Parts: sequence; C-alpha cells; structure tokens
Amino acid sequence: MNGADRLCDELLANDVDVCFANPGTSEMHFVAALDRKPRMRCVLGLFEGVVTAAADGYARMADKPAATLLHLGPGLANGLANLHNARRARTPMINVVGDHATYHLEHDAPLTSDIESLARPMSQWVKRIDNSESVGPDTAAAYRAAMSMPGVATLILPANAAWGEISASPVTRAELPAPDPIVAGTVRAAGDAIRSGRRVGLLLTGRALRADALAIAGRIAESHGIRLLAQTSNGRIERGAGRVPVTRVPYPVDQALATLRDIDVLVLVGSKVPVAFFAYPGKPGLLVREDCDIIELARAGQDLKQALAWLSDEIGTKAGGSTYRPKLSAKDEILPTGTLTEDAISIAVARMMPENAIICDESLTSARRFFELSETAPQHDYLALTGGAIGIGTPLAAGAAVACPDRKVIGLQADGSGMYTVQGLWTQARENLDVVTIVFANRTYAILHGEMRNVGVNEFGRNAQRMLNIDDPALDWVSLAKGLGVEGGRATTVEEFVKLFEGALARRGPFLIEAVI
Amino acid sequence: MNGADRLCDELLANDVDVCFANPGTSEMHFVAALDRKPRMRCVLGLFEGVVTAAADGYARMADKPAATLLHLGPGLANGLANLHNARRARTPMINVVGDHATYHLEHDAPLTSDIESLARPMSQWVKRIDNSESVGPDTAAAYRAAMSMPGVATLILPANAAWGEISASPVTRAELPAPDPIVAGTVRAAGDAIRSGRRVGLLLTGRALRADALAIAGRIAESHGIRLLAQTSNGRIERGAGRVPVTRVPYPVDQALATLRDIDVLVLVGSKVPVAFFAYPGKPGLLVREDCDIIELARAGQDLKQALAWLSDEIGTKAGGSTYRPKLSAKDEILPTGTLTEDAISIAVARMMPENAIICDESLTSARRFFELSETAPQHDYLALTGGAIGIGTPLAAGAAVACPDRKVIGLQADGSGMYTVQGLWTQARENLDVVTIVFANRTYAILHGEMRNVGVNEFGRNAQRMLNIDDPALDWVSLAKGLGVEGGRATTVEEFVKLFEGALARRGPFLIEAVI
Repeated sequence: MNGADRLCDELLANDVDVCFANPGTSEMHFVAALDRKPRMRCVLGLFEGVVTAAADGYARMADKPAATLLHLGPGLANGLANLHNARRARTPMINVVGDHATYHLEHDAPLTSDIESLARPMSQWVKRIDNSESVGPDTAAAYRAAMSMPGVATLILPANAAWGEISASPVTRAELPAPDPIVAGTVRAAGDAIRSGRRVGLLLTGRALRADALAIAGRIAESHGIRLLAQTSNGRIERGAGRVPVTRVPYPVDQALATLRDIDVLVLVGSKVPVAFFAYPGKPGLLVREDCDIIELARAGQDLKQALAWLSDEIGTKAGGSTYRPKLSAKDEILPTGTLTEDAISIAVARMMPENAIICDESLTSARRFFELSETAPQHDYLALTGGAIGIGTPLAAGAAVACPDRKVIGLQADGSGMYTVQGLWTQARENLDVVTIVFANRTYAILHGEMRNVGVNEFGRNAQRMLNIDDPALDWVSLAKGLGVEGGRATTVEEFVKLFEGALARRGPFLIEAVI
Repeated sequence: MNGADRLCDELLANDVDVCFANPGTSEMHFVAALDRKPRMRCVLGLFEGVVTAAADGYARMADKPAATLLHLGPGLANGLANLHNARRARTPMINVVGDHATYHLEHDAPLTSDIESLARPMSQWVKRIDNSESVGPDTAAAYRAAMSMPGVATLILPANAAWGEISASPVTRAELPAPDPIVAGTVRAAGDAIRSGRRVGLLLTGRALRADALAIAGRIAESHGIRLLAQTSNGRIERGAGRVPVTRVPYPVDQALATLRDIDVLVLVGSKVPVAFFAYPGKPGLLVREDCDIIELARAGQDLKQALAWLSDEIGTKAGGSTYRPKLSAKDEILPTGTLTEDAISIAVARMMPENAIICDESLTSARRFFELSETAPQHDYLALTGGAIGIGTPLAAGAAVACPDRKVIGLQADGSGMYTVQGLWTQARENLDVVTIVFANRTYAILHGEMRNVGVNEFGRNAQRMLNIDDPALDWVSLAKGLGVEGGRATTVEEFVKLFEGALARRGPFLIEAVI
C-alpha cells in the first residue's frame, strides 16, 4: 500500500466517508487509492468553490467532516471563499490539498505556489505531510483538529507522500480530546448577572442553536425574562413550530444597535461579541453599548448545551413546557396575487415547506421576511451564509442533500451570489439531489444599492450602474439550469410561483425556479 | 476629494483606464469615485476569476495594466487562480483589494481575513495603503512595480483610506525606472557558445516572442543553425505567415526531454530553465541534460529585444530575409467529413481564421495540433494558459477583446476548464465583445485520464470514473451560453462546425460553438 491508501483508510476508520473533489495531476495516486475504496463516496464539483461549500453543507447536517480533494495552490485558492464561510461557521472539514513531490518544489514548476500562505487565513489548522510514513498520524491529527476545534483542517499532501510505499498497519479510530470543561465560576457569574436584575441577553451560536440546547436556553429566558439572541449568521438553527425561537442580531448597523441597546450584560454561548459587518464613517464597530458587560459562558469547541444546562441549574429554571406564543405566522399573512414579490415568495415558502426541510438561505436582501415568517412553519433546519463570502448557496444545498437524502432541501438564492458557484447545480443533477433552488431574480446587486446610499450616493452614473446592475443582459436561469442538467421553470406571478413550487415539492430530484421579482 | 478619487486620478494619469471589477460594500467609496470618472471604463465580471483573467488578457494585448477591483479577502481569493496565471505570464496588473477600515480590523468582523497572506503567493508586489494621504504615492508605486517587473501588483485599500478627505494636488505620470541593462559579458558568453560549435538553443518568452524580436532571433538561428524554442506556455506569441516560427517545449515530460536532449548550451531570453510541469516517479524534474550549460542572456523585466539584437551583432548575422520554409500547413491537410474530431476543428480554424485574429487557447488536450497547423495561418496573436491554473480561457478572451475591439478573438476552450469561469460569457455579452468561443465538448477531464495511465491505472472503478468524467449529465453549452446572454450553436459533424464557424466569423459580437467530439 502507499501513502494515499493510508490516507483513505484513516479517513474511513474515522467514519469520514464522503469526499467532495476536483482532482488534478498531482492527486492521481490519491484518486487511484479512492478508486480502491468503494465505501468512500466521491462527489465531483466542477469548480472548487462548489467542493468546499458542499463539504460545509454536508458537515453542518452530518455533524462530522467530509474530506475535500483540491489540486495544488490554485485549486485550494478557488475553494477559499467558501472555506472562509466554513471557518466562520466552525464547520469540521478536512481539506486534502495535493502538492508537487517534495523534491520537485525547488524547480518552481508552473503550478508551484506557497500553499501554506494561501491556506492559513481560511483554516483553523494547517499541516504539510512530510512523507508517506507520516500520512497516517497526520490524517488522524487533522481529524482530531477538525472535530475538536471544531473547524477547517487543511492537510497538504505532496505527491511523493501519496505514492510512497509503506507497510500496511491496522488503522484505529482517532480518540478525540475531551473539550475544555465549562468553568463553574463563569456559570456563577452569569447566574449572578441574571439574579442582579440587570438586563441580560444570551447570544447563541453553533450547537447552542440545536433544538435540545434551545429548549434549555428557552427555559432560562422565560424563567428570568432575559433575551434570547443568535448571531447574525449561524451555521445551522433547528427551528419551526414547537421549538424555542431565537432572534438574530440584525445585519444593518442601526437596527443591530437598537436591538442590543437595552442589554446590560451579554452572555456569550459559543458566540463572539457582536460587531458591525462593515465600518461606516461615524458609526460604531461594536454593536453592544460600551458599558455592556460581557461574560463568555462557553466558547466554540466547548459543550455549549452543557453550559446552558449548568446555567439553568444555577439559576433554577422550571422544567415545564414553554409558554412562548409566536407573534407572527405565515398563515396569518395574506398571500398577494399577481405580480411576484420578494415577500410573496417568503410567505409562500413558509406556508408550503414540508416537515423536516433544510433551508439554505443565501437570499441576502431578498428573503428578508422569511426568517420571521417561518418561525411557526413545520420544523426545519436553517443554514445561512456565515462569513459574508457570497457564492455558498447552491453547493451548500448540495452538500446538505448528500448528508440527508431523505429530507427536502430548499435553497433561497439571490441571483448575484448564485452566479458565483452556479456550477453547483451540476453536482445536484449528477447526484440527483432533492434540492429546490429558488432564484430571487432581481437582476441587481441589491445589497450594494443600499450601501451606495449609505455612502451618500443616490444618483448613479454609468460606471456605478454597470458595476451594480446585472440586468443587461438579464440572466436566463432556466437555460442555465438546463445547461447544467437541472430542470426548471420561470415565475413572474405569485400563482406561477406557487404552482412551480408545488410541483417541485411533489417530485424528487433537483429543480430550479427563477422567481422574477 | 477623497482617497478613492486620488486612486482613480493616479491610475488615469498613467493611462490605466480600464477597471475590471466586482465590488462589495467596503469598496463603495471607490465605486462612487469611479462613477465620477467617465474616462475610466468599468467592466463587471460576475465572479472574480473572470475579473482577474480579463485583466490578464487585456494587458497581454494592450501592453499596459488594467486595474481590478476586488472585495476583501474572499473576493481576492476568488481571483487568485487567474492571478497565478498572470504572475506566471508576467502580466502587468494592478489589483485594488478593498479592506475594512483600519480601526475595524481588531473586531474580526465576519469578512475579515489576512489579505496579505492570500495575496503574496500570487503577486510579485503587495502593499497595504496606510491612509488616504498615501493613496497617491502607493498607487504610483503599484503602477511602477506592475510595469517594470513586469507583474502583478496588489494594493490593499482600507475603506477609511478610500473615504478619507485629502487636499487636491496635481497628479503626474509616474516615471518608470530604466530596466537593468543587458550585461555585455553575458552577450559575449552566449556568442562564444554559438561560435564554439556546440549545439545551442535559444529559449524565449515574454517580449522575445513578439514579431520584431522573433525576427532577430530568427536571424541568429538561421545564421548559425541553432534552435529556436519557446517556453511550454507563454503569455503572447506573435505568429503566422511571414513571421519567424518558434517551437514550444512540449508539455509531456518524455517529449520535452527528447526535444531538449541534443542541446549543449541553453540561452535563456526572459525564460526560466525548463522543468517538468509535474514530478513523476522515476522521471527527472529538469528537462535539459544535467551537463547542459545555461546562460541567462536576459531575464523578465530587461529589454529582451535589445538582448537579442546585441547577440545578433555579437555573432554577426545577416540582415536579409528569412529563408525559413514551413514544413506544414493547414491548407495541405485533408479536412475530414462527417463526425467532428479534435483535429478537424484545428484544421478548420487554422484555415478559416481571419487576418489579425487573437487566439486564446485553453483547449488543453483537445487542440493539440492547432499550434503547428496555424504556423502559416494569417498573422495572429496566440495567448495561452501560463500557470496551469485552469479556468482562464473565456475571460482571457473577454479581456483581449476589450483591448482590441477591432480584432476577432477566437477562444479554443476545453469543456472541463471552461466550466471554471463560465460566467465570463456574460461579460462577453454585456460588453458585446467580438469573441467566438469554441468549446471542445469531450465531456471528460481528458488530461487526467492520461495522467491516471501515467500512474499505472488503466481500468477505472466507479470513484475514478465519477471524478474524471463529466458526461453525466452532459453539459449543454448552448443553453449555458443562452443563459448568459450569448448566442450559440452545436456541431456534431465537420460540416456543421464549418458552417457555424463561418457564421460566427461573419458577424460581430460573442458567439459560442459547442463542438461535440
């Protein structure tokens, strides 16, 4: 056996059995090794941004990493934007980046580049494998790192480490280190703050947004009248009817400041102190009041649910059911007729989505109301763009569908960002994934129109128009989908949209709706 | 005025008047400034890989840099693969990468990343602007760097350096440093080698492959019976009937070794010592004999034409016309009929291409014979993939067409690599660029099939097939083009191809031919 075989064995021993890939010459021995392991499911992406986002979507739903296979520095570079999102989501992932044979690097062949320098900004852990003997331990270390941080682990695999012969030896599952324990003093401090009568907010992310952890957080919130908040962007929220709802910190700075203004003490549960997505002249970067106290109850990698449970014990919550009553339901909204609008789509999807759906939301400005309207929708998972690097949606949905073949995946996709990784539709077709993609075709970078007004420009000249609008020519998403092997239809009225969406929900396999708004 | 205005003024003062762009929030002040400068032509790419490759194609033809506008680390990351190619082509380019306001970085907002670490591997020059007052001098320095290295200069523009007010001051054209002079002793050494009767090869790239420099190189070669070679991949070659032809070092290692085996002394003119693209077990990395002497007559950034002229003087060549007679012409080849083949396309294009065309070749395995067959075609420029990072073709063609609106651009595009930056077709449509894209639809990563055989695998299992073939589903390029606003047609026979190509040559504006082979 060779190093590449060992890499596969090590992944499989740790139950990493999906590899999203776009290989090249330096990875041929790895491809040959994967070919000898039918247990490994290899999923091709026609562009590496698809590969990394799919691995992200997969791991968010599977709660274990996928491997990726990337070709040298440029292949990694193509996947970096979505690695950035995965890093912000703290998604476990093991990137395998092929490189030249170690002795070939000195020649500075055309595809040579500084892979470490590229990998580090978007990885929590980076390691270059020395030789074929160290493939095994290094892969185990990558797995441990991905799972325990959790986050993006990048393993650089020189071609000669892949092809070098090694003696076969048994491979065992890697033992994961215990997470850092929750600190009793911090739990007490959070309890003191709550008991003090000051206005306390719990800011959740990561595993604290799963239904079981949210149930505990909900008890804490109800018992003591404190605010339950989630970060603006989160990898995954389990939500819908019967689950404890959570308010996200809004994206616009002024709204975020208003939301957080009354909070005296913010308790972080896996989250970071909320800051503005961007700096604006004359506006603060920090979204909490300057005199707001911060208590970090638990950070990413710790047991967030346990932290909430201990806090619940500390302050003595009631174990009974929630008395929470939702304020808003899509059922109470009037679905407009005629010309299709953003809000009509949000209402229709929130009403019509099936039980146990997975929502992949990269709608940016377009499905603004969907989150509130779907609070009482059937239970579902909600996956968002976490790092602000657009171009995650379509492949994220593909990865989630690979992880959960029995669930319907619904992509809420802005058109500008959808073009970044449009190739993801092909992977949906290739794997016959059960994904409905709804493209909000507003034919503009709408978010940037708002930002231009934020900098005081209201009248656009030719250059601004040509950089912020994508209406000339208009993208024909149905043809694009057809080109990539995905059936689709175009809706310009609410009735057309409802009909197409009904049809898409009734069938299995990928479908795209171009919703012209 | 603010820093962003100054940046525009500085670019325009140096005749940098095209900006390929995909902006984001942190660049809004720069967008607003560009909007105030109608002389600047802003060209939108729907993905940053389009932006950087278009800037590369533009500069290869315009002999001056374009600017790019990229959004933070992820926007830069998306453009890196084609920056890698530009770096290898030594293309002058000025990337403007927006970043958060300097004081916002400490908050580690979601889109924050280490931009320098990302930029360095794919840039010859990187600078972060400190404040709005230093925008002017830093932009001038970027221009000087891009032009004199030549290469990729990356300028990081913090949002507050863009929006900060500065006093207006006159902007003058930057003075370029004189290139390092050619060393007389080196010229003499190369002359001595030629006079010694040893077998000498001239290995050219960069400006040494323009018609005027090639004419001199041709005289040297003919007078003394020495070999004229070009690197495997070059940014631009001026070639066709009446111009001095040059043989490229072949990509396959064994062929390259055979080509270079008889060379005792290799004289580098802007080029590097030829090395294997990849390492293979048991094969050498260096493509020249171990005892081959290397003389670097001139390196990138020096005056390559002058170096050749001095060498010509040193050895005393005749100034008369070339006696070179081409061995091969597409006219002498029999154009097959019926089922379309790769070679039929190469023959047809070489025969039919108009005077003064620009060929953008990312055909990889498919148009293997095009280069030799087009040696006596009408005069044309030949632009190639220089760094091995696939996904350059379509946007490279777009950039070349922006630079040369009166010339026909013909893209020879492999399908696998074409999918990487398929969004480039939209820019061709948006700008109504005169580009014919010929997609070699073999529905496979054909180059990797060969490489798998190189590692000894001849029978592919399911995993290898699913990573190396892209036939299921087959891409429908005509629909893809339609989706992106480009008309197209599909050819499965030679006759259909010839008819579509004739039609495409007779019209202006973008057209795509899906050549099913």
